[in-house]
Amino acid sequence: MLKAKIFVELKPSVLDPQGKAVTNSLHNLGFEDVSQTRIGKYIEIVFDSSDHEAVSAEVTKICDSLLANPNTETYRFELVETKS
Amino acid sequence: MLKAKIFVELKPSVLDPQGKAVTNSLHNLGFEDVSQTRIGKYIEIVFDSSDHEAVSAEVTKICDSLLANPNTETYRFELVETKS
Repeated sequence: MLKAKIFVELKPSVLDPQGKAVTNSLHNLGFEDVSQTRIGKYIEIVFDSSDHEAVSAEVTKICDSLLANPNTETYRFELVETKS
Repeated sequence: MLKAKIFVELKPSVLDPQGKAVTNSLHNLGFEDVSQTRIGKYIEIVFDSSDHEAVSAEVTKICDSLLANPNTETYRFELVETKS
């Protein structure tokens, strides 16, 4: 079985209001040396397959069609062997 | 400057309805070999500091007090040098 670890992030040019809110909260909590925060998604998908090439193509399709918004987000992923 | 890459995930024992919904959607889209999906958060925080030890302690405090729910979530992080 293969596990895909997928990171979906906002493009650097896209404003991240949620990240800005976290930065402000951290300043209010006294963490003054925080200069920037960006919030993204981390998704793990387990596949009943051990074919790296096929799963890799599948994950690309999944990200393009469901997990990432191509207008505002970028994604990257890695595949690891897993037992469950 | 240091960038903290933080992963916040649901504990394995906690039900992930959002992940279940994604699994169902993927089956409907024809990705039959998907067996499980878990959705987490990926957060990047940039610090105006290069002191690994101090920033590491700070990130632990930040996760405990703001980013992760200790009842249902676990987190891990890594620190990397960054220019911006």
